[in-house]
Order: sequence, then structure tokens, then C-alpha cells
Amino acid sequence: MNSEMITSVPGFYAGAIHCGIKQSGKPDLAMLVSRAPAAAAAVFTTNKVVGAPVIVGRKHIRSGTISACIINSGCANVCTGRRGIQDAQEMCSLTSKVLTAKGIAMTPERVLPFSTGIIGHFLPMEKIRSGIVSLAEQIGNTIEHGVAFANGILTTDLKPKTASTQFTIQGKTITIAGCCKGSGMIAPNMATMLAYVATDAAITTAALNRAVKQVTDQTFNCVTVDQHTSTSDTFAVLANGLAGNSPIAAPTKPWQKFTQALYEICDSLARQIAADGEGATKLVCVHVTGAATQKDAYRAAMAIANSPLVKTAIHGGDPNWGRFVSAAGYSGAKMNPDRASCNVGKITVFKNGRPTQTDLSQVEALMRGYEVHIHVNLGVSGKGICRVYTCDLSREYITINADYHT
Amino acid sequence: MNSEMITSVPGFYAGAIHCGIKQSGKPDLAMLVSRAPAAAAAVFTTNKVVGAPVIVGRKHIRSGTISACIINSGCANVCTGRRGIQDAQEMCSLTSKVLTAKGIAMTPERVLPFSTGIIGHFLPMEKIRSGIVSLAEQIGNTIEHGVAFANGILTTDLKPKTASTQFTIQGKTITIAGCCKGSGMIAPNMATMLAYVATDAAITTAALNRAVKQVTDQTFNCVTVDQHTSTSDTFAVLANGLAGNSPIAAPTKPWQKFTQALYEICDSLARQIAADGEGATKLVCVHVTGAATQKDAYRAAMAIANSPLVKTAIHGGDPNWGRFVSAAGYSGAKMNPDRASCNVGKITVFKNGRPTQTDLSQVEALMRGYEVHIHVNLGVSGKGICRVYTCDLSREYITINADYHT
Repeated sequence: MNSEMITSVPGFYAGAIHCGIKQSGKPDLAMLVSRAPAAAAAVFTTNKVVGAPVIVGRKHIRSGTISACIINSGCANVCTGRRGIQDAQEMCSLTSKVLTAKGIAMTPERVLPFSTGIIGHFLPMEKIRSGIVSLAEQIGNTIEHGVAFANGILTTDLKPKTASTQFTIQGKTITIAGCCKGSGMIAPNMATMLAYVATDAAITTAALNRAVKQVTDQTFNCVTVDQHTSTSDTFAVLANGLAGNSPIAAPTKPWQKFTQALYEICDSLARQIAADGEGATKLVCVHVTGAATQKDAYRAAMAIANSPLVKTAIHGGDPNWGRFVSAAGYSGAKMNPDRASCNVGKITVFKNGRPTQTDLSQVEALMRGYEVHIHVNLGVSGKGICRVYTCDLSREYITINADYHT
Repeated sequence: MNSEMITSVPGFYAGAIHCGIKQSGKPDLAMLVSRAPAAAAAVFTTNKVVGAPVIVGRKHIRSGTISACIINSGCANVCTGRRGIQDAQEMCSLTSKVLTAKGIAMTPERVLPFSTGIIGHFLPMEKIRSGIVSLAEQIGNTIEHGVAFANGILTTDLKPKTASTQFTIQGKTITIAGCCKGSGMIAPNMATMLAYVATDAAITTAALNRAVKQVTDQTFNCVTVDQHTSTSDTFAVLANGLAGNSPIAAPTKPWQKFTQALYEICDSLARQIAADGEGATKLVCVHVTGAATQKDAYRAAMAIANSPLVKTAIHGGDPNWGRFVSAAGYSGAKMNPDRASCNVGKITVFKNGRPTQTDLSQVEALMRGYEVHIHVNLGVSGKGICRVYTCDLSREYITINADYHT
């Protein structure tokens, strides 16, 4: 997986500035623009409390065509009523106006708005208005512009998260690149963060939607830091068609190729989110097999990944595998404890309902590594499998979240 | 609510000793005995991975009559296969034998076995065998015996948890007293701990079962420390009938009186569990109202109480109420954000979909107190309400659970 910036995709411009929302002086306003109108698909949070940008964004995505994304960090514009919606709409109309003036014609309905940060505060619209005007002057398609964009959308993240790849369809090289933010308030169903993927592939909206749905379920919906599903967050894919391939329809060979590339990008981004989870010192991969259904495998993997007892054991490098097995036990998934098993990495610690004779100090050594793999087989004859990314739970998580004051 | 010991109930004997399971030298074997066979009801964990004592206890409770409970701490006898079940059975048969020899006649099937501690290890039966013999010599009905029992069942708890009350039926004074353990691996559905309630009331097994079910749902099933439902834990009520009232049947006035007294005991114990949650510095009461159904109210209250973002905000005294509202939003409960509201104590911070003009420094002052009350109204016209006890999430929780090695 490469980590070229989103601006490596032909026809996409990006940029970010500090407009004054964040007191830290860090970038807090970012923009992604497609020179040509792009086929677009998006997945939004399933939280019943949603931000104003989600309400507006859901409306704008319906046409299946998007030209720009405007994103602020430092304030989520959530729980802000009618005024919040007007503010999100104004972000779109102003973005549309300044970009049209620059020669990239669009309407406000072709702009997706995003806000991330604290809940329950109104956007400082004066700062955002002048910010959008300045930012539109500064967008471009160099690596630096892509780096600025990847950094501009961050909140408590320590690192920008990017991924890119290329493949060919009908002899045409197609580029696909993405970036995302997300570190706390990370739990799936959808979404868990802000994520953007740009591609120059030509693809129908229907085919794009289908690829996005399938890939999201296996990637962004399988990452959790703290099980707190955000109110704001959204994953959007823009495909501007500049590669010149004949439009991809589903389900064809080119569609499978496209979906595989999209999966690789999203898998890499999801993994980067878990690795940069608030306070994380380790990346944890939970693998569940032997489940009656896909849903059961997902439930069990999520219960393990969300248990604070599991996460603290991993933080402490403690081979306390009873916590892994018992979390699967309360997940609601069908389970046969007498046939269940548990591995830490390649070491089997529990099999057929009882502990193995393993030397736990070997398990402890494995758990001291950076990347910890927990495998639980539910012992039910079924084909359900699931892999979830998460991180450990450290004192630093408490520090970040108890001291992050409103 | 008084906190007389469980030995204040006529006809009950108790005691605890250190038999050598815990390296700390703290008590690790405890016994509760009723002079007369007692009508009994119990609720067990809903985890699919259950300890051997739960498997044996479920069988023994079927007769509705119990004479003794034998409890060890320091090893949970979970994930131990057939050998674990044999060990739990032996704890019962030995207890029955030594107590019968002392003149309290019973069979092994009239003994409930309990084990709490680490998962995945076999019980050190040599120590337990000689321990049971010694312990049977030392049981009694003084306050000191009750204190020893309340302490003997603890694991990571900092404080013993006891409650008692008296009431009259047909001019007869009835005593009811309980104690419990539980600090980590605390989440409901049932059970969340070991809890014992003794009473000298005469009550039919059917009436007792009905009271236990109703009270458990409102008390022990409404407390959470870390959402990790244990594999072991059990709540048992023993009623030996020595008060001499005519046996209580359900649903009668005396049954309501009994159930209310049982509720008071269990509510107090549940609250004590949350207050003594691992690493707790504050007691948190989450109140959900305006829900479509009871189940929705419960879901929303549990989502709020289990969110690490909520728990760390409370730990830090941060009036970040967006975390409370957004947790309700992802709980799966029906919610109307435009009519929802949120109070911290008596201060309304969110109403009709937008923030109030409250001075957040007043909210911050409230949140600095020991007991924090969070109220969320889901804004759906319904009668569902729920109250859940929990605690904050501190660095100390991480220390306890990352450093508690197997």
C-alpha cells in the first residue's frame, strides 16, 4: 500500500488553512475539489443524534454527483438545531460560489459539508466565511497540498492517515487515494470518522454505491477505539472519470478490480485509525472464526475489541485470555464453550473447554509486541468470520479524555 | 438502609478463613449456612461461557431448597471442563458432609457452590478440602462472623458491601440482610457479582422467585462498571421461615412488602458495587426518561453508562454533555433529537435540539461533586424510564487491570 496523497489523483485539488476555530493554531478548515463533477457515494453515521452537516450531506449526496467537500475541525455543529443546518448550508453555498468564480462551476447541492470537534456549540461563522474565501485561493494538486489536507482534517489524531494505489482497466491506469481522520469517538455503524477517497475511475453511481457499501462493512465498520459511535462522521468517495475508461458497472470484472483497490485503501486507513486511537500503544487485531453467521462473528469480535478488561490486559501485556473468551461469551453470539478455542498469535491457550498446557510466559512475550493478534473460535459449526482492528486502553486515554475540556 | 450483617438474620451462620488460594493472605473461603432448610431462588450470569459452579448451582437450585453456600475467591473455576465440574461438586459434597456431622443435616444438592477470581485455572483442591473442614468449625452468628463473611467473598473490592432492613407481617418481625462482592467485570444480564440475601421470612419458592426476578431487573441488572458480563456470578436469596409468619404467596400485600424490602437491600448493594467499581472516584446515576419502552430506556441508560468518553468526562469534571446525548443516540433506542433534553443534576444543558444558555461553569461545579446525576430525556412520547448506577473511569482502573497479572 502506497501513501501518495489524495492530490495524486488526476483532477483533484486540495488544501487546508487555520481560520481561527482551534485555539492551538493548527489547521481547522480543509477543502477537496474535483475539476470535473464526480460520481459520488457516501456512508453516514447511524447515530440517531446527527450533526447538521450529516443532515445536509445526506440530502446533497442523493443526486450522485459531487464537486467539492468542505470540512472544518474544532467544532462538530451537532445538537445545534435549525441554526446549525443553516450554517452547514452556508458552508456549501459559499464554497460553491468561490469555486465557481475560480472557474470550477458547481451548485451548493454539489458540495458536501463536514464538521468535526466538540458537540453542542455553534460554528463561528465569521471565521469560516473568511476562511473559505482564503482557502479557495490556496488549493492545488501538489504533494504539499495533499499533506495539508490530510493534516487539516485531524482532531486528537497524532498522525495523518493516507493510502493510495493504482491499477489498470482496459489499459487505462486508474489512481485511487484516500485519507481520513479519527482517533476518539470511534466505533462503527457507520461511520467512525471522516474519510475521503478520490479516484479518476469512471464508474456509475450505482456501481460506486455498491462497492462503497461492501467495502465499508469490512473495513471502517470493523474498527473500534472506544465503542462511541460519532454523531458526525462520514465516508465519501468521489470518482471523476478522468482516467478515460468506459464507466464501470456492477458486478463485472472491472468492478471487482475497482472494489478490491477500494478495499485495500479502506483497510489501510481503518488500520491506521486503530493504530492512532487515543492513547494507543499497541495495534490489536481480533479474529473470530467458527461462528454460526457473519453477524455473530462480528458481534463476538466487537465485544472482545470493546471490553476495557481485554484492552487493559493487552496494554499490560498480560496473557489473561479468560477475558477474551468471556467477552465472546456475553456478546450475544452463539457459542459452544466446550468446542471453543482461543489463540494469542500462533499459541493456543484454550481448547475444547479447557486450558492447554502452554507456557504462559511465551504468550506474555507475544503480547509485549506492538501488534497483538487475538483469535477466538466460537466452536459452532459455521462459516462466520470477522476481523476487527482496535487498540489497547492506556492511562493516556484517560488523560486525553478527562482533561479535554469544553 | 441499615448495614447489619447477614448473621443478624435468625438461623443463619457464616464465616470465612484464608485457606491458601490468595497469595495475599486475605480470606479466600467463605460459608453461609441456614439452620433450617431455606426456600431459595437464584439468578445466574447470562454469559454463554459459565463457570463450573454456575453449571452445578443451576442444577441444585431447581429443588427450590438450599441449606448452605460455599464460596472461594482467587480462582473462578471457569474454562476448566469436566474437571472443573467435579471440583465444584466436591465442594458441595464436602460442605454437606462436615455440616451434617455438626448437626445441620443436608445433602450435597442443598449446597450452592461459588468461585470468583481468575479464569482458566483449576482450583487448588487440596487447600479447599482442608479449608472447608476448618471453616465449618468456625462458623457462627455474631456480627464478627458476618463481617468475616462479607470480607471473605471480596476480590478487587476495596470495601465490603452490606445492607439490611426489618419489617413486619402479621405482627411478626422479619429480618432481611444481604452482602455482595463486585468491582470489576461488572455488567448486568445477570449477574454481575456474587450477592447473598438471607431472610427469616416464610415464603413459597414461587413467590420468592417472582420477587427475585422483579428486583434483580431493577437493581443488579442496572449497574455497570465495565460492561464485561462475568462468567461466574450469581445472586442467591435464602428464606428459612424462622420468623413464623404464614408462608407468603404472590401477589399479595405481604408479598409486596417483602419485595419492597428486598428491593431496598438490592438497590443499596447495587449502588455500593458502582461506588466501589475498580478505580472509581465518583458514583454516577444515569436517568433516562421519555423513552418509547422500558427496554429502550434501559438501552440508552446503559449506552451512556458504558461509554468510556462519558466516564472520562465525569472523571475530569468536564461538562461535555454532547457525549451523554450522543451515547443515547447510538444506543439503538428510539430518539427524537429535536425534542430530546439533557440535565446535569438540576441544570438543563440541552433542550429541543439545541444548547441552553446555561453557564457551563455551574455544571462543572456540579460535576466536581462525588455523586453525579445525568438525566437524558429521549424526546419520544413514552413512559419508559430507567436508572443505572455506574462510576467514572480513572487512570487507576487501567493500573488495576493492566497490572493484575495471571
